[in-house]
Amino acid sequence: MDPVSKLIELFSEFPGIGPRQARRFAYFVLTRPNSFIEEFTKNIGAAKKSLRTCSSCQRFFTSSSQMKLCSTCSDESREKNLLMIVARDSDFEAVEKSGVYRGLYFVLGGSVPVLEKEPEKRVRLAELKSRLGSAKHDSAESPAPSEIILSMSATPDGEHTGDVVRNFLEKNAGGVKISVLGKGLSTGTELEYSDTETLRNALKNRG
Amino acid sequence: MDPVSKLIELFSEFPGIGPRQARRFAYFVLTRPNSFIEEFTKNIGAAKKSLRTCSSCQRFFTSSSQMKLCSTCSDESREKNLLMIVARDSDFEAVEKSGVYRGLYFVLGGSVPVLEKEPEKRVRLAELKSRLGSAKHDSAESPAPSEIILSMSATPDGEHTGDVVRNFLEKNAGGVKISVLGKGLSTGTELEYSDTETLRNALKNRG
Amino acid sequence: MDPVSKLIELFSEFPGIGPRQARRFAYFVLTRPNSFIEEFTKNIGAAKKSLRTCSSCQRFFTSSSQMKLCSTCSDESREKNLLMIVARDSDFEAVEKSGVYRGLYFVLGGSVPVLEKEPEKRVRLAELKSRLGSAKHDSAESPAPSEIILSMSATPDGEHTGDVVRNFLEKNAGGVKISVLGKGLSTGTELEYSDTETLRNALKNRG
Amino acid sequence: MDPVSKLIELFSEFPGIGPRQARRFAYFVLTRPNSFIEEFTKNIGAAKKSLRTCSSCQRFFTSSSQMKLCSTCSDESREKNLLMIVARDSDFEAVEKSGVYRGLYFVLGGSVPVLEKEPEKRVRLAELKSRLGSAKHDSAESPAPSEIILSMSATPDGEHTGDVVRNFLEKNAGGVKISVLGKGLSTGTELEYSDTETLRNALKNRG
Repeated sequence: MDPVSKLIELFSEFPGIGPRQARRFAYFVLTRPNSFIEEFTKNIGAAKKSLRTCSSCQRFFTSSSQMKLCSTCSDESREKNLLMIVARDSDFEAVEKSGVYRGLYFVLGGSVPVLEKEPEKRVRLAELKSRLGSAKHDSAESPAPSEIILSMSATPDGEHTGDVVRNFLEKNAGGVKISVLGKGLSTGTELEYSDTETLRNALKNRG
Repeated sequence: MDPVSKLIELFSEFPGIGPRQARRFAYFVLTRPNSFIEEFTKNIGAAKKSLRTCSSCQRFFTSSSQMKLCSTCSDESREKNLLMIVARDSDFEAVEKSGVYRGLYFVLGGSVPVLEKEPEKRVRLAELKSRLGSAKHDSAESPAPSEIILSMSATPDGEHTGDVVRNFLEKNAGGVKISVLGKGLSTGTELEYSDTETLRNALKNRG
Repeated sequence: MDPVSKLIELFSEFPGIGPRQARRFAYFVLTRPNSFIEEFTKNIGAAKKSLRTCSSCQRFFTSSSQMKLCSTCSDESREKNLLMIVARDSDFEAVEKSGVYRGLYFVLGGSVPVLEKEPEKRVRLAELKSRLGSAKHDSAESPAPSEIILSMSATPDGEHTGDVVRNFLEKNAGGVKISVLGKGLSTGTELEYSDTETLRNALKNRG
Repeated sequence: MDPVSKLIELFSEFPGIGPRQARRFAYFVLTRPNSFIEEFTKNIGAAKKSLRTCSSCQRFFTSSSQMKLCSTCSDESREKNLLMIVARDSDFEAVEKSGVYRGLYFVLGGSVPVLEKEPEKRVRLAELKSRLGSAKHDSAESPAPSEIILSMSATPDGEHTGDVVRNFLEKNAGGVKISVLGKGLSTGTELEYSDTETLRNALKNRG
């Protein structure tokens, strides 16, 4: 395959990109000055080299040094008794950006589709076990949580992922309190158009 | 104005209908057989005649007899200690259709926009006072509630309406417990795209 | 069926209206003051009574007198040698509103779907024959056209309707020139996203 | 700026990409295996190296050899008396893909916005002059056209670009016939929703 076609194919793998836009991207890149392309490829390489996986929360972070802990996990001011489990780095970022949570995190690295037979291939259950195992010694890297918050999307995959992790935790983190995010009306929800599940939860969680 | 133009103008007042669709509607009606038009106008008249306002919950219902209570308020099997306050008939219908609630209702007849100076012109506060006043004698028509559930949309107008009604209740229904629908993730909410308010509520209402 | 349910059913027959909006319409009408409902039903009746079908172009028009010709067909300043055939009253209105055409019209009253076996049930072919038959005597009501313009949408149904009418005209209006609207780029068309047919026509009709 | 932030910034320059999607792209790339990233950057470089500008039509093409003419301009079977001027490579591709045109092309490299003072900075007028100057000697590379087809989008910028090129051609290609793509109904256009300009053109170009 010629390099342009190959490039279009590679762009087609980008999230949310169809063949037409992949072609546009290839044209865009190829018609930039050489300086753009050099900077682009150089930064991809440098960014990849600087990419680390946090040994505690497993999220990606970038660092020019050889740090093992990300800035959140190494932040002494976080509430170390709370551990929020999220599916993806982007979920971590959304919660951090909101500023409503000051505890620690664990990033599963994905979610478990409803019919998946081997959840351990989709999410970091081994790393989670290891995180909680170390926590028994309550080290700086892995402080022992008193509550684990399952923080998944209210979607079928999110619910299923929550169930899988809860089952896993009940076997592997006995004694720690497990909670899930509250369900109910979210901002902008109109009562008239709410589904039964949301109404049921909103009513149950009224207060 | 000729009757066709006038008809188009009247259709333009229908909810969500612009001038183009109003014109289509007028053409549609006028090109129906006479039998359609007769049935249409006849049923509008008959429906209007059969329309009642429930003397307890204030919602519209239709009846050929002279009943004062709607089928819900006159249903002996409802939980009479719960009174849910909703903004509109359509909210009542949405909650009833979900089947998650078995108590009684009160329909405000609208919501209170954030800058409204005279909320009593928008919502049935006088009727609400009367409903709760009668409730002191705990009649069949107006049983005394032990809990009032403010059941508004999670929108600015809905929140404001809830505040207005809560203030009103605190002055006029002292002693009755007041609750609001729970906030949190609603069905389909993805964590990554949740706003701060929803995340804050989901975290607060975790369990 | 109770009159409200019946009214919702009748509103569901309106063009583009689903059950939910039909219900909204019924509520809207029923909660208007009596004066609105009276005016509404009164104007439907009056408009229906004033509705005429033009004996020449067949379009609907309203008149309090017993006129047989619509204002366009009775307008002496129109170019009587041009006859544009359109599918619907709304097409007539769109062309008139544009002001680009000063000839006469004939309204088919519909279009002929591609698989329709009996086109004469869908469009006014008998009336068209009658219009052109009278035209042989070149009366004020039916002047003889020197050109008939088939003015259909560039959609499958429009194309098919054009074919049906052209076949009919070739048998019934021998000798009169028949033309069709030009095809090509329409306002706003981007070359990059044009389909083959449009490009072919745009190239063929270049000038 | 750290390499990840820089990479996000570079992705933000891609056509149609906002900051949120740029961030997703960066994450996507960084979490691919090294092999993906190597292939990606390698193919960008190789594609850029293989990119040529056709010395006749000015469009981009890729070739591993040192060819000066693209495959279309060097195709002996094309109709060399027709020269279609298009704004962009993507327009060339759309017309070629349709298969309705068998002549040659010239790619302007952009369009001229309505208020642009210096059109020669936006489109390849110098190269066009050179193409037509060479054409006087009717070489294999630049055969002399007998007709130049201005093939622009039916948008304000497209119309303006057409005007600019026409003025330029009238001064620099005297004697050659200049045509523009036909206007009228394009595929899918409904008569009822057509704008005045389209109706005017459809009527003018009827046939």
